[in-house]
Amino acid sequence: MSGHAEGTGGGRAGPTVGIVGAGQLARMLGEAASELGVTTVVLAERADDAATAVAGHTVVGAADDRRALEELAARCDVVTLDHELVDLGLLAELDRRPGGAVRPGPGTLEAAVDKIAMRRRFDAAGLPGPAWAEVHGAADVERFAAGHGWPVVLKAARGGYDGKGVWPLGDAAEARSVVDAALGGGTPLLVEAMVPLEAELAALVARRPGGDVVAWPAVETAQVDGVCREVLVPGRLPADVRRAAADLGARVAEEVGSVGVLAVELFYAGGELLVNEIAARPHNSGHWTIEGATTSQFENHLRAVLDLPLGATDPTAPEVASVNVFGSAQAPDPVAALASALAVPGAHVHLYGKEPRPGRKLGHVTVTGSDPLSVRRRAWAAAVALGTPLPGGIEVDGLDAPAAGDGAAR
Amino acid sequence: MSGHAEGTGGGRAGPTVGIVGAGQLARMLGEAASELGVTTVVLAERADDAATAVAGHTVVGAADDRRALEELAARCDVVTLDHELVDLGLLAELDRRPGGAVRPGPGTLEAAVDKIAMRRRFDAAGLPGPAWAEVHGAADVERFAAGHGWPVVLKAARGGYDGKGVWPLGDAAEARSVVDAALGGGTPLLVEAMVPLEAELAALVARRPGGDVVAWPAVETAQVDGVCREVLVPGRLPADVRRAAADLGARVAEEVGSVGVLAVELFYAGGELLVNEIAARPHNSGHWTIEGATTSQFENHLRAVLDLPLGATDPTAPEVASVNVFGSAQAPDPVAALASALAVPGAHVHLYGKEPRPGRKLGHVTVTGSDPLSVRRRAWAAAVALGTPLPGGIEVDGLDAPAAGDGAAR
Repeated sequence: MSGHAEGTGGGRAGPTVGIVGAGQLARMLGEAASELGVTTVVLAERADDAATAVAGHTVVGAADDRRALEELAARCDVVTLDHELVDLGLLAELDRRPGGAVRPGPGTLEAAVDKIAMRRRFDAAGLPGPAWAEVHGAADVERFAAGHGWPVVLKAARGGYDGKGVWPLGDAAEARSVVDAALGGGTPLLVEAMVPLEAELAALVARRPGGDVVAWPAVETAQVDGVCREVLVPGRLPADVRRAAADLGARVAEEVGSVGVLAVELFYAGGELLVNEIAARPHNSGHWTIEGATTSQFENHLRAVLDLPLGATDPTAPEVASVNVFGSAQAPDPVAALASALAVPGAHVHLYGKEPRPGRKLGHVTVTGSDPLSVRRRAWAAAVALGTPLPGGIEVDGLDAPAAGDGAAR
Repeated sequence: MSGHAEGTGGGRAGPTVGIVGAGQLARMLGEAASELGVTTVVLAERADDAATAVAGHTVVGAADDRRALEELAARCDVVTLDHELVDLGLLAELDRRPGGAVRPGPGTLEAAVDKIAMRRRFDAAGLPGPAWAEVHGAADVERFAAGHGWPVVLKAARGGYDGKGVWPLGDAAEARSVVDAALGGGTPLLVEAMVPLEAELAALVARRPGGDVVAWPAVETAQVDGVCREVLVPGRLPADVRRAAADLGARVAEEVGSVGVLAVELFYAGGELLVNEIAARPHNSGHWTIEGATTSQFENHLRAVLDLPLGATDPTAPEVASVNVFGSAQAPDPVAALASALAVPGAHVHLYGKEPRPGRKLGHVTVTGSDPLSVRRRAWAAAVALGTPLPGGIEVDGLDAPAAGDGAAR
């Protein structure tokens, strides 16, 4: 006997989380926050950034704008981040104020935003990684390569993402030209040994201030040109490797004292797991958890930064595939594309409300089920329907006939 | 190799859905819309109504305010509703305008907002319901009771919800006092036979404009004082009854030509299913679908009103329990209460961001799993932790020790 709106009527209650950044991660945090009755306030560069549509309030300003950060902090119980392009000094100052709480804290963020700081810390803690060295000139690269062999990988210590700030170098001549150009930009650099990569994995954990930690199953990721294209759960690696990856994720979280979600990107090379890099926030490799795990990375990030009990991380299905959606040169009609994607059985379509541009990450699709080939094929079918170009190096059997013979929709 | 926000940057794309009303149904529609890249605009009575936090835009005004409705319609591709306290004439006018689309349409809404219109239509279509009659005075009730026996149930044809507008009448004296008072308010009335209720069920379906329809499994609901307290999936009734209920839901949707979600509340009495009432929108009896079904009622409502392919409705677990959260006389500290609720293994907590007041519906909790007793116990444990008084007539075995021996979190 209802037959009614179930009561409208105002008044907000519950905690408020501030987010530095208003991209898709902040948007998905906002979706999870709304479910829990948590309000989000975002610090957005532009008033129409992806997360502003679901935020309780938007502060417009740069991530390193003191006044904007102060306004954000004043409006919330705890400040968290959706990217690492931040001013650590300013955040540390906010964190030290009475009643101020930046989570993860400055100690964690330093390792997440500065690859040199991260490598030093992990070496000291005995956490596995590729051989590496700081680079102040091309001679440092040549000396490193003399010990570890060419090719090597040059990286910007800060500010890189999605393959930007990463340069594979084949020989000394290449090193000289690239290092000089990169140093000219004022970026601190490091060089790493090129490892004989067999696969890439990501370990995702959530940790509370007191140290409680939960780990999702480790996943296999596929990058093309440094950009994540698909995530497979559990993926194709042996169970002992996946377990070791999840354990390594928890060790890294403990070492950096993270609060919230921590993603640890791993190389599997020569039978070993090596830490590639970390992100102290929800991460593309964890989008599958929205439908594929009992608790999503977004909900557990909120629970962790609010120091609330963490939710279970067990998968909801034996197989999960998640594929990123990118803009293409010929943008399809958005509603027709959405209709085609939603016609793929079991396709969970996530779009971030961003204007399509070639190469821009616009969304992702997740499919859960029991057959790894079927879930992967359907996730790709929906992503392609949404305009994603199938990149070189990714092969999907049967993509031409995605819906046929897939059986149950879930 | 990401380590970044994955790109922020603005520009909205995708369709826009307008919602008349901004309560929790609109809020959960907003959460589902955000995932799909769909923007919502809500017509809210107050600027801080539950759904405004996740709406792309809020128009403040009454649901029957012509100018507010026109502004809402101008800002969206399609108008839908989160309650039935609307002006059918105004909505019909909007629907007839070039480019205007109100979904569900006025023909469906008439049956949903007016119980006399509904009963006439269902009788004509041969859909089962209790015996009933229009009431223009106490003599009509007495005449009806002479044929069908006392007690009877008097109902307001319009505007009732959550037990309001429903009066059980035991004899002619009671009928005379209640009917005169109710008619004095100008409300059209009807009387229904009191059926020998064994259980209540709800059938939930989603239908596209062209007639495509999907049905979720029928559920068992428990009402106390006319207010839904818990939803059990599949519940305790035999499978053939549940299948018949789901089929009946699809027949009703076809009969009223619904677009979007339609909830059909059913009595199971004397071995028969009878239509109690309908709601042409997402419904409390379908909140379990957020975690408990491949596609939630909120996502499929959006898909349906946008004429997009509907998603699969199969359950994600053998057993699902969903329990409503109500305010109590002594409101607990909201953050401490949230912590206690989230400590219950597998509890999916949904709070609507509403200020707690005694008896106010503030949220719901869903638990999925394989043991019906365990999922129900855990859902109640979390709801009680959030301050919900355990109502008379509801018994939950083992509620004192909710977390003990429940095994897996999911």
